[in-house]
Amino acid sequence: MKRIDLISTGGTIACVPTETGLKPELSAKELLNLIEGDNSDINCTDLFSMDSSNIQPEEWITIAEAIKSRVGNSGGIVVTHGTDTMAYTASMLSFMLAGIPIPVVITGSQHPAVYPDSDGRRNLENAIVAAKSLVGGVYICFGNSLMLGCRAVKTRTTSLNAFESINYPPIGTVSNGRMLALYNPVLPTGFTFSTDIDPRVALVKLIPGMSPKLIECCIECNIRGVVVEAFGLGGMHSIRRNHLEAIRRLMKQGLPVVLTSQCLYEQSTPDIYEVSRPLRELGIISAGDMTTEAAITKLMWVLGRTNDMEEVRSLMQKNLVGELTEWN
Amino acid sequence: MKRIDLISTGGTIACVPTETGLKPELSAKELLNLIEGDNSDINCTDLFSMDSSNIQPEEWITIAEAIKSRVGNSGGIVVTHGTDTMAYTASMLSFMLAGIPIPVVITGSQHPAVYPDSDGRRNLENAIVAAKSLVGGVYICFGNSLMLGCRAVKTRTTSLNAFESINYPPIGTVSNGRMLALYNPVLPTGFTFSTDIDPRVALVKLIPGMSPKLIECCIECNIRGVVVEAFGLGGMHSIRRNHLEAIRRLMKQGLPVVLTSQCLYEQSTPDIYEVSRPLRELGIISAGDMTTEAAITKLMWVLGRTNDMEEVRSLMQKNLVGELTEWN
Repeated sequence: MKRIDLISTGGTIACVPTETGLKPELSAKELLNLIEGDNSDINCTDLFSMDSSNIQPEEWITIAEAIKSRVGNSGGIVVTHGTDTMAYTASMLSFMLAGIPIPVVITGSQHPAVYPDSDGRRNLENAIVAAKSLVGGVYICFGNSLMLGCRAVKTRTTSLNAFESINYPPIGTVSNGRMLALYNPVLPTGFTFSTDIDPRVALVKLIPGMSPKLIECCIECNIRGVVVEAFGLGGMHSIRRNHLEAIRRLMKQGLPVVLTSQCLYEQSTPDIYEVSRPLRELGIISAGDMTTEAAITKLMWVLGRTNDMEEVRSLMQKNLVGELTEWN
Repeated sequence: MKRIDLISTGGTIACVPTETGLKPELSAKELLNLIEGDNSDINCTDLFSMDSSNIQPEEWITIAEAIKSRVGNSGGIVVTHGTDTMAYTASMLSFMLAGIPIPVVITGSQHPAVYPDSDGRRNLENAIVAAKSLVGGVYICFGNSLMLGCRAVKTRTTSLNAFESINYPPIGTVSNGRMLALYNPVLPTGFTFSTDIDPRVALVKLIPGMSPKLIECCIECNIRGVVVEAFGLGGMHSIRRNHLEAIRRLMKQGLPVVLTSQCLYEQSTPDIYEVSRPLRELGIISAGDMTTEAAITKLMWVLGRTNDMEEVRSLMQKNLVGELTEWN
């Protein structure tokens, strides 16, 4: 029988109503007491109790270290977390805990677990089942669906199936105490723990008519890497308000620029249209079919290891933990 | 028999292969010659021939004016357009052409119409059918699906069903020369043409760890209105890197700030969680269930009419052309 650890970090699942709105206050033990079955063998830790809108790189490091310290003693870890930034945390933990030999299953809920018809109790039960069933890696278990952490995106603000697995098959479904495996992800072997990250990354989502100054201001804001959510496969303005020229300036300053799409599904590539070709010549780094969440957190993690442009490109364009489909 | 006008603006549908990548070169007449049936009665206009990654507010005005000049003589208008910014153009035209008594149906394709298995010919045929069948309003017809223009989002970079109708039912399906109506949108009556817009709008998509300076730099970049894509229902950092405080500074400078979600589906609201409550007190404008494309173009259009904060709020939070569900 595997020992399971439950680490609480707050989120809607732990919320109770207060005069100023919902506030995360339940402990891991209090959450466990709300669900079915004998869970007295589950090891509880209250790491912090935050709305996930406030979770930042510092919290990612705290969570990663808490998990790492349990590897060797624990058979699987469940992390309760708010939904708002859960996909970012899941992506970052995927990199920080690359090759982790035990499963890390992140869950939360759309409604506070104390509410009568909350999804929180079911999600927590399912996450525990998944943590007992899986071998290793970082996952999100939500709305009966089990997804690879670095492929999950929150796509719905209110419905119970809040997360989707993007450009990657779901790993399984979980219900009534059982996990049904759907896809066996290829994960790295060999645990390489690293919380060295550089959070000075900017995300720029383009809109028609956008001033290129809004791209260039990354330089004054002490940014070390930029992810651009371009149009479609990777398009941007090259006339009048010249986004291409602004990106050229960023790259001249030594900033790696990663190209992704503002379309939720499918890959980006700067190879196909005449207007996008100069991007490739500039040396823009293609995010392929990574989610924006994965591209952002991966760039922070890569910049924690190297500032060499070619090494950054090579790491960004290499599949590390299942976040990227390599076609060639 | 209604007279149909075809206006070409470029895009993949009009592309031909060149040495430097795909380039939009086919005229409206050449496009028509590629499809089935006798289309000799269709009135052709080549407005410009651009990759839609380069379409900007100036092009929106040109397209709107071309459409307006045909109202009275035309029974319906088909606009061919690149897919990359089609949803932005469709949203902006919905506001500029509010209450238009003839249908404007925008289409394009994922593959050049000259390619043997292109979706371009079918999409153009379907758009003509839709323009003959509909009464008024601005639509996107793509991949057999007919959507209200201000609710469409490009969600797939490569598949033929590239667009989705977000938080709004599809208007119909079109195939084999027939439109099957699915939903009758409630549209404004009375045509009020206006191309007065202020394109100095910024979009800020938040990420965990984002420097608040990247929000505040809107002030130096001569921005007049900001749309924030926040976490989940409308969350953002309120500690350490204080996004809330940065937004307060923007609003103190008189900039309206519109709150939307980075989740693709469902509405945003700053009312539910404790961390989001101050946003409401600040006077942030909720985008409700508008798409980011609609929120951006609507803010540009509203700022072309007024800079008064309360008037901006009132117009942004009112449904004008079907872009917003009003719940109360």
